[in-house]
Amino acid sequence: MAVIPMWMCDRDNSMHESKKEADAHDKLLELAEQFTMLMEENLKGVDEKQAEEFGLLLARNKDKVVQACKGKPDALNDLLVEDGAKVTPTKAAKK
Amino acid sequence: MAVIPMWMCDRDNSMHESKKEADAHDKLLELAEQFTMLMEENLKGVDEKQAEEFGLLLARNKDKVVQACKGKPDALNDLLVEDGAKVTPTKAAKK
Repeated sequence: MAVIPMWMCDRDNSMHESKKEADAHDKLLELAEQFTMLMEENLKGVDEKQAEEFGLLLARNKDKVVQACKGKPDALNDLLVEDGAKVTPTKAAKK
Repeated sequence: MAVIPMWMCDRDNSMHESKKEADAHDKLLELAEQFTMLMEENLKGVDEKQAEEFGLLLARNKDKVVQACKGKPDALNDLLVEDGAKVTPTKAAKK
């Protein structure tokens, strides 16, 4: 059988078929972590899980964040509708 | 006595000596509000005051946010040190 080279991103142990993809994923997680760290430092008592997911939301939509910062603040509006509903805690809340 | 034209930004009733300055201030507040709205939608139960101040922190440092999104995530590190301490609730916490 064939053996296929894969690339693991050690930030979250995710597997990727190309180095490029793994690098992009690593950069995404790094940016997310930076936003989350900033949040945790400035929003005392913020829920860690939510801060992580909000960091990911910003990192995943970094193009829109850049647009907003470059004079089109309402570019962030798309995140309110588009991603707003999707950011739910990944593990179902224990009853 | 002289009468001097001033420009008021109606988002926070701040007064500015030039239209350019007032416009820049208005854009800053608009960007801050967008970040804050996004936060309040995604961080259920986040403290409103903190969300407002964090929105302002990002808006005030939008150049660093753009740098981070464009491949230099550690640009946000400067905000951890530089602004980290300054973002304290404006009114002293009641004892």
